Amino acid sequence: MTAAPDTRGPVTAGRAAQLPALGIDIGGTKVAGGVVAPDGTILDTARRATPGKSVTATEDAIASVVDELAERHGGPLVGVGVGAAGWFDRTGDTVLFSPHLAWRNQALRKDLAGRLQRPLWVGNDADAAAWAEYRYGAARGSSLMLMITLGTGIGGGIVIDGRLQRGSHGVAGEWGHMRVVPDGRLCACGNRGCWEQYASGNALGHTAREVADHSPAAAADLLDRVDGNAARLTGEVVARAAADGDPLAIELLCEVGTWLGQGIADLSAILDPDVVVIGGGVSVLGETVLAPARERLERALPGRGFRPGPRVAAAELGAQAGLVGAADLVRRAVADGEG
Amino acid sequence: MTAAPDTRGPVTAGRAAQLPALGIDIGGTKVAGGVVAPDGTILDTARRATPGKSVTATEDAIASVVDELAERHGGPLVGVGVGAAGWFDRTGDTVLFSPHLAWRNQALRKDLAGRLQRPLWVGNDADAAAWAEYRYGAARGSSLMLMITLGTGIGGGIVIDGRLQRGSHGVAGEWGHMRVVPDGRLCACGNRGCWEQYASGNALGHTAREVADHSPAAAADLLDRVDGNAARLTGEVVARAAADGDPLAIELLCEVGTWLGQGIADLSAILDPDVVVIGGGVSVLGETVLAPARERLERALPGRGFRPGPRVAAAELGAQAGLVGAADLVRRAVADGEG
Amino acid sequence: MTAAPDTRGPVTAGRAAQLPALGIDIGGTKVAGGVVAPDGTILDTARRATPGKSVTATEDAIASVVDELAERHGGPLVGVGVGAAGWFDRTGDTVLFSPHLAWRNQALRKDLAGRLQRPLWVGNDADAAAWAEYRYGAARGSSLMLMITLGTGIGGGIVIDGRLQRGSHGVAGEWGHMRVVPDGRLCACGNRGCWEQYASGNALGHTAREVADHSPAAAADLLDRVDGNAARLTGEVVARAAADGDPLAIELLCEVGTWLGQGIADLSAILDPDVVVIGGGVSVLGETVLAPARERLERALPGRGFRPGPRVAAAELGAQAGLVGAADLVRRAVADGEG
Amino acid sequence: MTAAPDTRGPVTAGRAAQLPALGIDIGGTKVAGGVVAPDGTILDTARRATPGKSVTATEDAIASVVDELAERHGGPLVGVGVGAAGWFDRTGDTVLFSPHLAWRNQALRKDLAGRLQRPLWVGNDADAAAWAEYRYGAARGSSLMLMITLGTGIGGGIVIDGRLQRGSHGVAGEWGHMRVVPDGRLCACGNRGCWEQYASGNALGHTAREVADHSPAAAADLLDRVDGNAARLTGEVVARAAADGDPLAIELLCEVGTWLGQGIADLSAILDPDVVVIGGGVSVLGETVLAPARERLERALPGRGFRPGPRVAAAELGAQAGLVGAADLVRRAVADGEG
Repeated sequence: MTAAPDTRGPVTAGRAAQLPALGIDIGGTKVAGGVVAPDGTILDTARRATPGKSVTATEDAIASVVDELAERHGGPLVGVGVGAAGWFDRTGDTVLFSPHLAWRNQALRKDLAGRLQRPLWVGNDADAAAWAEYRYGAARGSSLMLMITLGTGIGGGIVIDGRLQRGSHGVAGEWGHMRVVPDGRLCACGNRGCWEQYASGNALGHTAREVADHSPAAAADLLDRVDGNAARLTGEVVARAAADGDPLAIELLCEVGTWLGQGIADLSAILDPDVVVIGGGVSVLGETVLAPARERLERALPGRGFRPGPRVAAAELGAQAGLVGAADLVRRAVADGEG
Repeated sequence: MTAAPDTRGPVTAGRAAQLPALGIDIGGTKVAGGVVAPDGTILDTARRATPGKSVTATEDAIASVVDELAERHGGPLVGVGVGAAGWFDRTGDTVLFSPHLAWRNQALRKDLAGRLQRPLWVGNDADAAAWAEYRYGAARGSSLMLMITLGTGIGGGIVIDGRLQRGSHGVAGEWGHMRVVPDGRLCACGNRGCWEQYASGNALGHTAREVADHSPAAAADLLDRVDGNAARLTGEVVARAAADGDPLAIELLCEVGTWLGQGIADLSAILDPDVVVIGGGVSVLGETVLAPARERLERALPGRGFRPGPRVAAAELGAQAGLVGAADLVRRAVADGEG
Repeated sequence: MTAAPDTRGPVTAGRAAQLPALGIDIGGTKVAGGVVAPDGTILDTARRATPGKSVTATEDAIASVVDELAERHGGPLVGVGVGAAGWFDRTGDTVLFSPHLAWRNQALRKDLAGRLQRPLWVGNDADAAAWAEYRYGAARGSSLMLMITLGTGIGGGIVIDGRLQRGSHGVAGEWGHMRVVPDGRLCACGNRGCWEQYASGNALGHTAREVADHSPAAAADLLDRVDGNAARLTGEVVARAAADGDPLAIELLCEVGTWLGQGIADLSAILDPDVVVIGGGVSVLGETVLAPARERLERALPGRGFRPGPRVAAAELGAQAGLVGAADLVRRAVADGEG
Repeated sequence: MTAAPDTRGPVTAGRAAQLPALGIDIGGTKVAGGVVAPDGTILDTARRATPGKSVTATEDAIASVVDELAERHGGPLVGVGVGAAGWFDRTGDTVLFSPHLAWRNQALRKDLAGRLQRPLWVGNDADAAAWAEYRYGAARGSSLMLMITLGTGIGGGIVIDGRLQRGSHGVAGEWGHMRVVPDGRLCACGNRGCWEQYASGNALGHTAREVADHSPAAAADLLDRVDGNAARLTGEVVARAAADGDPLAIELLCEVGTWLGQGIADLSAILDPDVVVIGGGVSVLGETVLAPARERLERALPGRGFRPGPRVAAAELGAQAGLVGAADLVRRAVADGEG
């Protein structure tokens, strides 16, 4: 039996830019990995289920995905980029908070570095997706792009002049927690009326359940999809119904889009982006959400008429943006002599 | 008669960092200029009144201030930095909009360059003030600082990793136009409920006039200061009254501070600064405004307990921050081979 | 076998005021009835379960309760007063809408009159409760009283100068649908932000579920009471927990109380009551809810200092107020020559 | 010289309904009076300027108007009805608060009774106008009518089943102080966001001044009407401009109408009127205000589809409604054996 090729050996900064890297995306139920070429092409993928929030189980799953992909790949790999929902500190050394990960103020990066023995980038999944869209997708050539991922909540990433901006403590882009409705819906962050309570997949499900509770007749078609159990009306169910042409579902998506546009108007006043990329699960619905978002933005942009606003574009890289971005971020870090 | 020393001659990039530069601050009624050393010290100043909004008159006043300062200074000067209220495009070539300047989509930079024959930086005064606080003031060493100037409105500047961020069109930092009160006070930007309608000198005057109109007895002391004419109750009058211990004025400033803190909470979610510097006319009141701002921020920061928030600090450079910052920005541009 | 005494025979208006009457309260799951003396004493009671919303089944249950009570009573009875949640027209002839009753624009009164062969009063249960509190309870001697019942929603009744006011179409007192939060919680009435979404038993459950969804740790004690199933956190569960001293439950009740006081301030501006009686299931908690309501009212009453506000009192007649009030309303109608 | 006929002598209750009465309307600058026939016809009028708020001067002006009208009239008069802006207690004995009158908790009725030696009705001018519209105008035959007067603020009156309802302390109908915008415009009542800050003549002027301050160009035509002095833009100026077809003025009135409709929706939930009469200065604009009010009411009425809403009608009696109503109220009081 021949020894497995060593894909782990040191890579010079100069060579890094030409080599594939590994990208890992940690979700609520699975760890997905890919080998990603410098041009963004995904050369291979692998995945593992992660049972619960156990730190060891998650690290085992990451290591296992990395080993599988590295072995199949055979050649040299720059390092491993890992993206996950949650708040990381500025260096990625520590998880401040994550809905899916049990790491709490633990030395995530140190743990992983010890196990994987490779250069690492660790950070927020929306940051990774933002980077991917900037490098390969809807925001190529942008001088200041914002990525808004509409999933269960709102995630965000910022790329300015070709640099990912993670904030001074690593938690920039958490605009899902701007207050848009005083005394509004309670949010996990402890406040009321956060933007992500009105423009996200969860928001979509929330409003659908409100309608179903109060007007079952109006929501009859939606309720049919969940055997009459309103509690099971999630954003995904509504999104599917909208894709099938359900009028109430389309109206609810339009409402989400309007709130999306309102928030983009605020962000435009603050950061003046040239492009805002909308990704995440809800974004697959495309114009159903984006058209009302643009319409509201056009009416709500402060100083409209005196200043340009951003282009609002659908994400181009789909569900694998996080993985692709994380891979490129570790590649860039090594090329820059960090990582 | 000896020829005036030529302070205009080309300066090599290498030498620029060691030389003084000229800073100009264009306000509503005057053009103020100064010779600023690399360590931020102001070596000399001059000023001219500007009658109205005439383009020629303003350019004349700038040229005259520059000539006077350059002649007195005698030695070499890196260039001229010009800051003014308003929206500039990203390069400073063009004024998009300014309350005090008649330039509208005009080639401001080209005009000035032709007249002054010196390297130029042109931009927003709050951006210049942000830079000054980052370099010499309350935000030294910050990795991500926000400057909030409370004047007639709210101005803003952003410095990330040692770079001033002006947005993709030059109008970043216009967070005075975040919506904080749905259906609230009308703003010049065309929207209702903008932050600067609740946290600024104008907001202070606005609320004081509301109180005086409805409860003259409650506002008797304030009204005494303006001979009973409520229409003359400006933010400045209220600020002076607060400094004298007037209870209503102090309460009104506290309200402005609370709104200030609410907005900082939103900005912290979005940009994750390590320090937020409060400057502008209202900031001279210091803790009367900053204490309630910090108190609200502490209760409103999304994810408080899981993440650090910013330090909220009073500006240290006072009214001349804009001039000092503009001077350093042209110095830096020349040193970087731009300008 | 002797014939049952005829309790149904005609009663002269003059005698009516001295005779007992039957009161019926139709709830979601049961029909409860009682024989009520002119002084408000309940002499006898009976109840039937009502399976679903069937018109016939509900009428059967009413008739059966009436027969049982009349037979046991033996003596003459003035008539039957029937109260139910829902909107009735001004005469009580027709149900416009009811959550528990299948009658829709049907001739309820005619149906019942045909079956019962007795004088009838038919109307809203909160109206009946208001009348009971005015006649026998917390609002005796009032010149203008408002009854606010906090149950699943908010019910209301108005008694002015000794007359129950039902509005021109029979739906006065529906103040649970005043808008208190723009863009707020969706309501069954089709609007957002209705008062009853913030101050009612349902509101209590709603907020508890919001907290439990977002901060399970904070709601751990509440969740223990429903085996960890947040969906089962109703207002009743929270009310019981508050009675047991649970701090979160008490805080949630305090929030409901504050919203209650805010709405009473609006109602006081509109109707200028001398007493507002708070009844319904939530009211059993007494001062936990009423103290914050009074505190907010004191700060929010328009023109406070220039005008008196109402006394806010707990209902005195408990769960049987509706039955007692309905009985007295039919007695009064007969005494006045109506009914 | 013949003695003046005694128009003051006692009138039997039975005869009162057939006799003319005097009505007095106290405004900010004048006392207006009229002799009013039982069918509402005004037979004669007189007026006096009232210099300032002096109690004696106002009483003198009232007495003088009464004497002049009585002398000219010659025949018997039932009594004097007096309406004024402000809060009166339930009996009209005392002024709690009035913007135009210096009486503060004074025995107004006793003072006037002593001077006039005639039966008196004293009360709120919007109450008097409500009664006039109920008896002779747009609300004839109503079972529950609300009068909304749009003047500098919002006044209100309620007539239920042929009785004017003044509340338990005399201050019912002050719905101008319902909160419609949380954190909204400050009101003289001490609260923020009161309805009358958004739907009244003052509101119209307020918004016009906001627009003029922020967008002088947009408000150029309005500003021309006040020689460029935005502070002089009152509701009256805007109303005139709208009558002349000024597009901004019409838009501002439409906004006032929309807020009017929103508030009527709340009042309909609370009181269930069959007709809401809109009077006061702003109402002369008719459909410009009423059409958007009806449109919003239709969309905002809670339970629309399940219940009827009110008819929204323009007042029919114009500026003299208060005088006419006050006269009829004293006539009715005498006929009822009160007064």
